[in-house]
Amino acid sequence: MLRVESALAAAQAESGLIAPESGAAIARACETAELDALAIGLDAQASVQPVVPFVEALRAAVPEVSRADVHLAATSQDILDTASMLVARHALALMLESLRVASEGCAVLAHAHQSTVMAGRTLLQQAMPTTFGLKAAGWMRGLDDAAIAIKRVGGGLALQFGGAVGTLAGSGGRGMEVAARMGESLGLRCPDLPWHVHRGRVVELASSVALAAGAASKVATDIVLLSQSEIGEVREGVPGGSSSMPHKQNPAGSVAVIAAARRAHALMPVFYASMSGEHERSAGGWQAEWGALSDLFLIAHAAVEGTARVLAGLRVSPERMRANCTGDDVGEAGSLVRHALAAHRRDWRRIGAR
Amino acid sequence: MLRVESALAAAQAESGLIAPESGAAIARACETAELDALAIGLDAQASVQPVVPFVEALRAAVPEVSRADVHLAATSQDILDTASMLVARHALALMLESLRVASEGCAVLAHAHQSTVMAGRTLLQQAMPTTFGLKAAGWMRGLDDAAIAIKRVGGGLALQFGGAVGTLAGSGGRGMEVAARMGESLGLRCPDLPWHVHRGRVVELASSVALAAGAASKVATDIVLLSQSEIGEVREGVPGGSSSMPHKQNPAGSVAVIAAARRAHALMPVFYASMSGEHERSAGGWQAEWGALSDLFLIAHAAVEGTARVLAGLRVSPERMRANCTGDDVGEAGSLVRHALAAHRRDWRRIGAR
Amino acid sequence: MLRVESALAAAQAESGLIAPESGAAIARACETAELDALAIGLDAQASVQPVVPFVEALRAAVPEVSRADVHLAATSQDILDTASMLVARHALALMLESLRVASEGCAVLAHAHQSTVMAGRTLLQQAMPTTFGLKAAGWMRGLDDAAIAIKRVGGGLALQFGGAVGTLAGSGGRGMEVAARMGESLGLRCPDLPWHVHRGRVVELASSVALAAGAASKVATDIVLLSQSEIGEVREGVPGGSSSMPHKQNPAGSVAVIAAARRAHALMPVFYASMSGEHERSAGGWQAEWGALSDLFLIAHAAVEGTARVLAGLRVSPERMRANCTGDDVGEAGSLVRHALAAHRRDWRRIGAR
Amino acid sequence: MLRVESALAAAQAESGLIAPESGAAIARACETAELDALAIGLDAQASVQPVVPFVEALRAAVPEVSRADVHLAATSQDILDTASMLVARHALALMLESLRVASEGCAVLAHAHQSTVMAGRTLLQQAMPTTFGLKAAGWMRGLDDAAIAIKRVGGGLALQFGGAVGTLAGSGGRGMEVAARMGESLGLRCPDLPWHVHRGRVVELASSVALAAGAASKVATDIVLLSQSEIGEVREGVPGGSSSMPHKQNPAGSVAVIAAARRAHALMPVFYASMSGEHERSAGGWQAEWGALSDLFLIAHAAVEGTARVLAGLRVSPERMRANCTGDDVGEAGSLVRHALAAHRRDWRRIGAR
Repeated sequence: MLRVESALAAAQAESGLIAPESGAAIARACETAELDALAIGLDAQASVQPVVPFVEALRAAVPEVSRADVHLAATSQDILDTASMLVARHALALMLESLRVASEGCAVLAHAHQSTVMAGRTLLQQAMPTTFGLKAAGWMRGLDDAAIAIKRVGGGLALQFGGAVGTLAGSGGRGMEVAARMGESLGLRCPDLPWHVHRGRVVELASSVALAAGAASKVATDIVLLSQSEIGEVREGVPGGSSSMPHKQNPAGSVAVIAAARRAHALMPVFYASMSGEHERSAGGWQAEWGALSDLFLIAHAAVEGTARVLAGLRVSPERMRANCTGDDVGEAGSLVRHALAAHRRDWRRIGAR
Repeated sequence: MLRVESALAAAQAESGLIAPESGAAIARACETAELDALAIGLDAQASVQPVVPFVEALRAAVPEVSRADVHLAATSQDILDTASMLVARHALALMLESLRVASEGCAVLAHAHQSTVMAGRTLLQQAMPTTFGLKAAGWMRGLDDAAIAIKRVGGGLALQFGGAVGTLAGSGGRGMEVAARMGESLGLRCPDLPWHVHRGRVVELASSVALAAGAASKVATDIVLLSQSEIGEVREGVPGGSSSMPHKQNPAGSVAVIAAARRAHALMPVFYASMSGEHERSAGGWQAEWGALSDLFLIAHAAVEGTARVLAGLRVSPERMRANCTGDDVGEAGSLVRHALAAHRRDWRRIGAR
Repeated sequence: MLRVESALAAAQAESGLIAPESGAAIARACETAELDALAIGLDAQASVQPVVPFVEALRAAVPEVSRADVHLAATSQDILDTASMLVARHALALMLESLRVASEGCAVLAHAHQSTVMAGRTLLQQAMPTTFGLKAAGWMRGLDDAAIAIKRVGGGLALQFGGAVGTLAGSGGRGMEVAARMGESLGLRCPDLPWHVHRGRVVELASSVALAAGAASKVATDIVLLSQSEIGEVREGVPGGSSSMPHKQNPAGSVAVIAAARRAHALMPVFYASMSGEHERSAGGWQAEWGALSDLFLIAHAAVEGTARVLAGLRVSPERMRANCTGDDVGEAGSLVRHALAAHRRDWRRIGAR
Repeated sequence: MLRVESALAAAQAESGLIAPESGAAIARACETAELDALAIGLDAQASVQPVVPFVEALRAAVPEVSRADVHLAATSQDILDTASMLVARHALALMLESLRVASEGCAVLAHAHQSTVMAGRTLLQQAMPTTFGLKAAGWMRGLDDAAIAIKRVGGGLALQFGGAVGTLAGSGGRGMEVAARMGESLGLRCPDLPWHVHRGRVVELASSVALAAGAASKVATDIVLLSQSEIGEVREGVPGGSSSMPHKQNPAGSVAVIAAARRAHALMPVFYASMSGEHERSAGGWQAEWGALSDLFLIAHAAVEGTARVLAGLRVSPERMRANCTGDDVGEAGSLVRHALAAHRRDWRRIGAR
């Protein structure tokens, strides 16, 4: 929120809406003010949002002459939504990095096990042979598709700036100019219209993150199933223990991923419900988004990071795979794996992460 | 499903996997066979999917010499998923057309009411003035964003072809070639890998449709609120009646849209849960998708179409808007509306509908 | 709805609100009138509910002198909600019967396999031995708990009668008397207050049904897992076929149950959202309930009935269970099974079904 | 968890399974040991549950001779589930107390405004008159119904004790006796069977809490709607401020309740999905419950407590109600209110809170 108020003041100074000295003073305060986050949080209850006490605290940190220039022409939602998008950008970058590690873990397995024959199973019945390489390539593809979605959404994250009811009132006719400058300085897109009550953007953001959790849950589900005592084709590198049976080797990492994915997905309805926000500011929907979005970032990231960790340590038993499988016609599994690995390299070049 | 089996046979004939006569005979049967959909539906229960009895019925309609060439190297999910994507393409086109009509309805209102001052309301409290034009432009933007998402998803709809466990076994090493030909003839993308158990694609498809329902629900919510007796700023052209109070003018169309959007959004968890499908074919998740996807197409389309209808007949009362509103500083509402209308025209040119 | 209007007229005649002749005429019309359900359904769209055209059609079937007495003092929601509760009563009875059959199927297995040792598995890892009887007893207990919940909810199903805004206006001060009589004749509870916008009752109704689907999904999940090729401890009596692999024996019935349970559970948010209905009649929430409740009854019942069918035909292999299991200390499994069977008999005696 | 281990040891000592000295030593350790919760939490990650490191820490706090008697014959889930039920009991008591305060707040309004005429509104259109007393009585009824559900569920909270796979192995044939003693000392019901993978109980627990949040959201929705500038019939005692419009009086408390209820309801699918847990311990579903249940208790309680607070401070304007309303036939509103208040007193006597 400090960065948003700072960018706002800078843009307004450049546009001649406030004095350059005010812009500088506000920027300085945003960098050096030591705000009491706990006090702001507690005061937030009264107005059902933290921006009111936050702006008050920020004003107190600015020389008196510039106080009226703090938060000029902005509404609380401008600050909170824009700040959320800055947080989202960071969260998506972390997610992308974890997806890359997890997907790379799959790529290594796909390459190493191109010729490792195992039973293909449909409806949990043995069907025809496949290779572990192809299975790992499928996991990789799921993660890569999520990464593409996150990259696209990340590129579209937009500034929020509309003032009290989205008309840019109070900006002296230079509101669109201010928005453009803010967008540039914050590295966010300047949207065609304020999106205070048009939350499709948040749904698309949340969807991309939930997609990543879903792709992770696929890997974890297969690993739990392949780890079954009677199948034993893979094993987590550091299995979980049991309080009553010392011999047990639980696929604890994968189980945690499955649990996290379920919780992440359960958050989605909150975002959809927020799409029908009332008039110029939602009376409940928007407010429900905040915690849900934070939780989603944390939980979905835990799912993907956990998957990466499990993949990195995975012990594969080609012998058990071979023993459990009858037949050896794996069709074009080899070509498919090579094709998928090429697509994987192509996609990550485009994503440009590392 | 007939179109998919036909395209499969044609592609296999072109690739030399089956005799040209078989390809022709199967194509002919797919066009002329009169299958008993009800019988197939009833038989579907036994195998928990309709492809088994469908293929049996199709084979019976093909000359004996070609029967073994029907459904060659394919698995049930290849046919069902690909057929679903053909249905989806059609459903998305209908949705896009309804979104266009609804959004155009907003554009007309946005243009006509650029200068119609009304109260802006946040948390359902009067805040500062806005214009009805800007409100309508916001609705339009929400619908346009959904249309863009649907257009993007529609362009990525992909063929499913992998055979029993996704290895392309049974295709004599020419499976990838067959897939490419099928994709071309059906107008679907050829994916990097079969996606039998990687359902991110379905989640993205469903998300785009749910987004449209959400954008519709925003319009409907505002109309219901503006129609309140004490506010009376808009009124549906054909309000709904009451069984006990003949004088009532219920915003029935909008209420139906809100109800539909809620039901549409409730379907989303089904798709997310399907992402953790087991091994090479899901044991429950995939099967839950079918009805959910059909319902989603129907219900979400009803929401958008209903919104278009309500918008087309909407009675706006600038007098009540003026009377309910104190103040007249609408900031840059006019510029924002013009900007949004330009973006609307740009986006629909790109979408290329009509 | 016909039964509700009939009961309403009878109660009003008994309370002296309408002439006995009117009561009789309306009752007759409700029994003999041949209404055009399709036409009513189509007309329902205009008022976003079917009661308006329904009452109109019913009035047309009543002698002119009694027409004004049809639907007297009632509101559409009185009729629709009460009719829903009559449907619910029937649906719950069907559900209870299917639960009884499914649970009885478990009881038979629990009794027959009290001493059938098998591996107990936690986090899908073999842990310590258990018996198949104890596993089946656990399934039974889950189904029995759902049956108890359904029985309780079924006993509390309540009439809806409040008139236009829930004040009983139009009933000449005898509304509470009319309600009491209606409740008696329809066999529904007379609630302390009309519950037009207090939908906790519907949530509790839906929850009990969803609970049954959940108990069914537990049985199906275990059967799918025990049916795995590598485990082979049970097998469905009539396994599902495959379009590409004639040898496959898919646990099709169980997979269908899992899919149904997921769809049933996805409907729950619709009911919760309806709890925040606006003022004296919800603008969207109530309307979303209708289809969701019908779907829930159908889908959840399919889940339970499918489970009963699978259980009835289940092939159990004590040999494979023995072979897959090391150790034989099954603790107090036998006593637990006997205890659970006694509780099962006790609970169904109380439920009183058959 | 300490209380559960203590009760377990005591029960086992009484049943002669462990030496009385061990029972006493463990009880002492459970009371005095200072465990490092953070360290246990961090170590929990390895086994995807906290009981393994917790038992290890507890054992270290017990004299060596008794260490093997700690957690004897128990499985991690026995401890965690039972501890959850102790937490649930406390959470339900808090919830019941907040429901009582909120419902009492409604009762006061219902009584005071028995004759305060206001417009009844359906589909947000003025329909016929009602009284504010009847509206408040409806809110009260919704809260009372939730309280009844919570009371019932609270009375059924059950102990979990089954050992590794639910057979009571390791208890020397006295497991059922141990369970009975534990239940008695902890004040929890002794279930007919261990419910490790039969999570209907948790669904019922969560449902009752979600019901309370739903009843709260009804109150909050009406208050937000009645607070609209154009209606102004009620006003929160301490309205929320705005960062841009000092004059605004936002119904902040009610908006927070609506947001909380949405988040609470979104958690329900997690519990339903957990019903299909695998074999003798769920691989993901159970683990997803923990955080969801904690969140549910916190968020739903916040909704109810917030509602109580808003109700306590609510400013009602009978003048505005009168002015907004045409007509004055409020039917039997008065009798209904008196009837509802009597039912309210009856129900809380039964609930027995205070």
